Amino acid sequence: MNVLWIFAHPEPRSLGGSLRDEGLRTLRAQGADVRESDLYAMKWKAVVDADDFGRAASTERLIVGSTSKDAFRTGELGEDIRAEHEKLAWADTVIFQFPLWWYGMPAILKGWFDRVFVKGFAYGVQRPDGRTARYGEGALAGKRAMVVLTAGAPEATIGPRGVNGEIGDLLFPLQHGTLWYAGMSVLPPLTICGADRVSPEQYEAAAESLRERLRTLSTQDPIPFRRQNGGDYDDALVLRDELAPGRSGIGVHLAG
Amino acid sequence: MNVLWIFAHPEPRSLGGSLRDEGLRTLRAQGADVRESDLYAMKWKAVVDADDFGRAASTERLIVGSTSKDAFRTGELGEDIRAEHEKLAWADTVIFQFPLWWYGMPAILKGWFDRVFVKGFAYGVQRPDGRTARYGEGALAGKRAMVVLTAGAPEATIGPRGVNGEIGDLLFPLQHGTLWYAGMSVLPPLTICGADRVSPEQYEAAAESLRERLRTLSTQDPIPFRRQNGGDYDDALVLRDELAPGRSGIGVHLAG
Repeated sequence: MNVLWIFAHPEPRSLGGSLRDEGLRTLRAQGADVRESDLYAMKWKAVVDADDFGRAASTERLIVGSTSKDAFRTGELGEDIRAEHEKLAWADTVIFQFPLWWYGMPAILKGWFDRVFVKGFAYGVQRPDGRTARYGEGALAGKRAMVVLTAGAPEATIGPRGVNGEIGDLLFPLQHGTLWYAGMSVLPPLTICGADRVSPEQYEAAAESLRERLRTLSTQDPIPFRRQNGGDYDDALVLRDELAPGRSGIGVHLAG
Repeated sequence: MNVLWIFAHPEPRSLGGSLRDEGLRTLRAQGADVRESDLYAMKWKAVVDADDFGRAASTERLIVGSTSKDAFRTGELGEDIRAEHEKLAWADTVIFQFPLWWYGMPAILKGWFDRVFVKGFAYGVQRPDGRTARYGEGALAGKRAMVVLTAGAPEATIGPRGVNGEIGDLLFPLQHGTLWYAGMSVLPPLTICGADRVSPEQYEAAAESLRERLRTLSTQDPIPFRRQNGGDYDDALVLRDELAPGRSGIGVHLAG
């Protein structure tokens, strides 16, 4: 197993940092090959701009999508972006670990997706039949992804009827709209709640749940998001009337 | 009316840039005072780190929440962050305009929230009764917010049963989990679809819908998110059984 671990926490001496160390150790002990992108340690550039695209960026109006596609095709993307593409090509499994900030990713990780998931690579890829390859198909199809979160919120508040919204709904733009969009099979997230207030016993329980999830990385069932081109959506990419009839909301995009 | 316009697009000569110009012009013509944070033009620092917190950041482990609170209280926050606080204090209405990237904000805007919405200001504020002031209460209560989006996706695909998920669900972490969390009343978003492919007629229609929304900024009904401390949630901050009984998902957090 080739595992790429993307870590987006500013402080290695944090709960998140300890869990990252635990995770890497666990994976290596079970014989996996592991590589890491520690975004803060790498001083990862978070913001997309013309500098990312080399000579593909003209001095005229910057159109991010098409320019990124040109730069990807011609090898003009920034070296840091190309290095991440090489890691993604190598990996069969990718872990995304971050503290939940404002119910989403820290900017440095959002910027990893903004800069690495360029057009022609992670989106805007045509299939032979003219449909776009996305949601279960695409460059990253066949790879597995898992989100590992630390969150200050108590568990009930990110549960099904908790005030913050259910964690799967909060992660929908990432898990469905980004990872599944690009073709990855997404395992259920692991969320460690009550960060900054964990006792040694709670830490050990959190570490054990992480170890357990890592042991079963290759056998867990992914979240059953519907495939765009599997027959569930019509030509306008709207869910067919007979599926989840009369319903809307995030839940309709899960099969069964 | 004091309107702060937060703009997060790398290219002023874009559809987004034209709409921003149109919006500022419209507001000024109707007598509003307008200020702007053009994040790319300001070269806004997107990534939270110890440099944000001056002397409040020790050389020991960085705990972002408590350190940001200390720095906020002692006036040690970075000058760029304090300038945004001053603008927010001045504004009664804030527009957040961005291109939808991976079903969320560009990293530069996420980093604006990560760095500006510090503890003690936008979260972690106690009420006299010991409950935390959030979701309809807090530092920004009484102010209005509106999201203005440009998106490449066709409109049906971000509709109620569209493959990408409904736009209100995709924006829930921002509109509910960030803006409403900090107390702001959130108006329905304005989404301009088909960016990069708009004809002059489509542009004029988009500009007119923006102008119309800006004319009615102070009279539109906000999204009816439930208040945390209004009686709908129990002491564990879980929605009471008798409200939206048996249901879960983002929709349960809207009243009525």
